[in-house]
Amino acid sequence: MHHATTTLTLTATVSETRVRYAETDQMGVAYHANYLVWCEMGRTDFIRQHVKSYAEIERDGVALAVSDATLRFHAGAKYDEVVRVETTLIEVRSRALVFDYMITRAESGERLATARTTLVSLDPAGKLVVMPADLRARLQAVAG
Amino acid sequence: MHHATTTLTLTATVSETRVRYAETDQMGVAYHANYLVWCEMGRTDFIRQHVKSYAEIERDGVALAVSDATLRFHAGAKYDEVVRVETTLIEVRSRALVFDYMITRAESGERLATARTTLVSLDPAGKLVVMPADLRARLQAVAG
Amino acid sequence: MHHATTTLTLTATVSETRVRYAETDQMGVAYHANYLVWCEMGRTDFIRQHVKSYAEIERDGVALAVSDATLRFHAGAKYDEVVRVETTLIEVRSRALVFDYMITRAESGERLATARTTLVSLDPAGKLVVMPADLRARLQAVAG
Amino acid sequence: MHHATTTLTLTATVSETRVRYAETDQMGVAYHANYLVWCEMGRTDFIRQHVKSYAEIERDGVALAVSDATLRFHAGAKYDEVVRVETTLIEVRSRALVFDYMITRAESGERLATARTTLVSLDPAGKLVVMPADLRARLQAVAG
Repeated sequence: MHHATTTLTLTATVSETRVRYAETDQMGVAYHANYLVWCEMGRTDFIRQHVKSYAEIERDGVALAVSDATLRFHAGAKYDEVVRVETTLIEVRSRALVFDYMITRAESGERLATARTTLVSLDPAGKLVVMPADLRARLQAVAG
Repeated sequence: MHHATTTLTLTATVSETRVRYAETDQMGVAYHANYLVWCEMGRTDFIRQHVKSYAEIERDGVALAVSDATLRFHAGAKYDEVVRVETTLIEVRSRALVFDYMITRAESGERLATARTTLVSLDPAGKLVVMPADLRARLQAVAG
Repeated sequence: MHHATTTLTLTATVSETRVRYAETDQMGVAYHANYLVWCEMGRTDFIRQHVKSYAEIERDGVALAVSDATLRFHAGAKYDEVVRVETTLIEVRSRALVFDYMITRAESGERLATARTTLVSLDPAGKLVVMPADLRARLQAVAG
Repeated sequence: MHHATTTLTLTATVSETRVRYAETDQMGVAYHANYLVWCEMGRTDFIRQHVKSYAEIERDGVALAVSDATLRFHAGAKYDEVVRVETTLIEVRSRALVFDYMITRAESGERLATARTTLVSLDPAGKLVVMPADLRARLQAVAG
């Protein structure tokens, strides 16, 4: 199993994925930019679990774009091991969301990285807009 | 669930993965080079299922490097949909393996792409070498 | 200099790019799927040089999507070395183009890979369409 | 021309690269994780310009691994446009370096993103080590 989603608590989502060979670099660990991709995977799972598919949100005319990202790397993920992403929504504003991520080795629980991203809501023209009320309400209900 | 592995028949392995936002391009479908990554994922699952982790094979001193790849694209995979990769080993030679891949939408079964890759066995210096006898024997037992 | 474009003959385009750390894998060479990205870079340069920016073609309502790809890998590209992509258009049909690529180490000329891709012209709905006459005429003038 | 390097001042390095189709996502702009790859490209150019190829540093037994990254995104880079990365070294410690990046549209100068990464020096076993004195001295001479 490479990637699965389960509920950890009311407000956290756990996603798992296996490190692909394509994701490694010549240092023998997953290249650091991939952690942002894994965060996106965790965030997608969080939103699907608590609201609906992000693909549907986008079809409804609201895009959530990353405006800020902070990552701290503690250890390197190895090829073929399962990494776990624990995603938490820590803040809901009218036009922005802040997510936290804890990324660990699934087997040992060792911490690999922590990250935080802010997402802003954009209309199809790329302008900052207030999030639809229902989306915001559902997210607020599961924010930490 | 993003990616899971099950046995289809004695000689085929089925892997599934969700299309990541990172994998899409501005045409609104998964960028074509990602199919080679999905094939690698299917091949990794095949080898783990029938022999052992490819990570272990590599630690034993044998690398399997792609020497040839052929892909035919039929339809585009969309963001967040589950794609299924069905991997079959169709030929085992002393220094090469040939894998076939059928990639479909998991939900509808619609064919997205077919692919074939040849892999050659290399020693740590990158020279072509004969595959270890036990690896070859185990692969031959599950080749189509 | 990482990536530059020059004219080789009337019908070939030479592009160069430096191998990024992100493109390497734990085998210590560029991961094979990146060659398809480099082919796309060469093809983009070819089209810009002989017709106009592919971005403009797409804005005019025609997308060129890869329908077939064949790659043969001869040697591995190393981190930070300059790879050269020589792109040739070998066939122009009403709804398809066939490009050939020769990828070498820029410094030594050693062959790294050869590839061929077929691209089909699609309308915004993803349906196969005849290429605009002027686009086709300009491409035919530079086809090998 | 996709990617070239020039000296801006004594202590900054300017790199340029064209946005690849592979780097776009279905929002029609470059996927945010690619900015970390562009930062790595800028950093590689900075180190090559002021010291020597990072590939050589790594062969000498010292790896520089990203331990912290912070990114702020202001606007989206479009396919085929040239992005400029201006890299500055702002701090040199015995076991760590801090780089700043300003990423802009080359044509208009519009700011796309700013970023900061901390890199730590590791031995081949992945342990934190003091940077070689000559490497540190040369970097200190060009730090802001």
